[in-house]
Amino acid sequence: MWTFYFGPNPISLASHIALHDAGAEVALRRMDMGAGAHQQGDYAKLNPKLRVPTLVTERGALTETPAILAFVAQRFPEKRLAPLSDPFAFAKFQEFNLYIAATLHVAHAHRMRGHRWVDAGDADAIRAMRAKVPESVGACFRYIEETYLDGPFVLGAEYTLADPYLLTVARWMEGDGLDVADFPKVASHRTMMLERETVQRALAEEAG
Amino acid sequence: MWTFYFGPNPISLASHIALHDAGAEVALRRMDMGAGAHQQGDYAKLNPKLRVPTLVTERGALTETPAILAFVAQRFPEKRLAPLSDPFAFAKFQEFNLYIAATLHVAHAHRMRGHRWVDAGDADAIRAMRAKVPESVGACFRYIEETYLDGPFVLGAEYTLADPYLLTVARWMEGDGLDVADFPKVASHRTMMLERETVQRALAEEAG
Repeated sequence: MWTFYFGPNPISLASHIALHDAGAEVALRRMDMGAGAHQQGDYAKLNPKLRVPTLVTERGALTETPAILAFVAQRFPEKRLAPLSDPFAFAKFQEFNLYIAATLHVAHAHRMRGHRWVDAGDADAIRAMRAKVPESVGACFRYIEETYLDGPFVLGAEYTLADPYLLTVARWMEGDGLDVADFPKVASHRTMMLERETVQRALAEEAG
Repeated sequence: MWTFYFGPNPISLASHIALHDAGAEVALRRMDMGAGAHQQGDYAKLNPKLRVPTLVTERGALTETPAILAFVAQRFPEKRLAPLSDPFAFAKFQEFNLYIAATLHVAHAHRMRGHRWVDAGDADAIRAMRAKVPESVGACFRYIEETYLDGPFVLGAEYTLADPYLLTVARWMEGDGLDVADFPKVASHRTMMLERETVQRALAEEAG
């Protein structure tokens, strides 16, 4: 059986939902991130990047959300969680996931993790980063609104693991200073996703 | 025939080398990025993210380096450019690529693209970001040095498209204030990679 380490609210929700979508047998390990549980002890050895999520499989540990999403889809092909048999369609699935990982999530992280990119003691620079977040994250959601979600899902008519990934970051919009009503497709997608059983189950497990 | 849009020196080098490794027939389009060629006209319609690379295939445009690398490997399976038949090994290949895309490349970008994350006119914050780069990018190369490159390649005995991706960012080390001699495995890998015919060909094409 696999083991999945996650925290409440961070990006690990996407992989958490994906594991339930796949019907994977998985032991859940909720990390107390406020107490720094993801930065010490055995977990720090398992994932020296000191982040969540980590998925421990029979072959070893895996990190990085887009890598986990593609892996879960490939290990449960009968669940049709990504367009696995069409390299171009699979690449478009990955392209969306990469945009979340390397652009949108990065922009968002400047609100609370600015110390990764400036001296932690530089309060002015930390504040300057935080001030830019509504604009930088807003531009990402604008791009998604205009490019994806022809519907009802991110990539069109078929549900894929890009959908829980978008839901996960869309839950941060209000905290990032955005009005979700300005992004009607993203808003509808979020509402629809929150009605899914696997999403509700993962959210209940994150609440602890 | 595909068309590949790239710039001299940016991250597009990794995909550029990958296309030659695959033996793909591709028309090359070198963008004059200093003149902003990647931010206007037809290219801006092709890739509204206004970045390089963009690979235009018979099915449409593709962006995001890890997505392109996996796509090239999947479209040319006989070239064995990624561990395609083993989902866990493929996930480890993707995990490395994701770390470059979402952590190392992001840390590096704070040297010259700080305006993405603070107001462009805030010279102090821009300077604060730039000052942190040797530490933040250095930590990434330290992690790679300690985790990968058991050799001679990133993931071990077999060459994969993780290798040109590492080479591409390793060429930025001096500019990021690092001494490559502090990272002997990365240094050896870089030297070895620069001797490969496909790398030399891509670099010559980038020089124009």
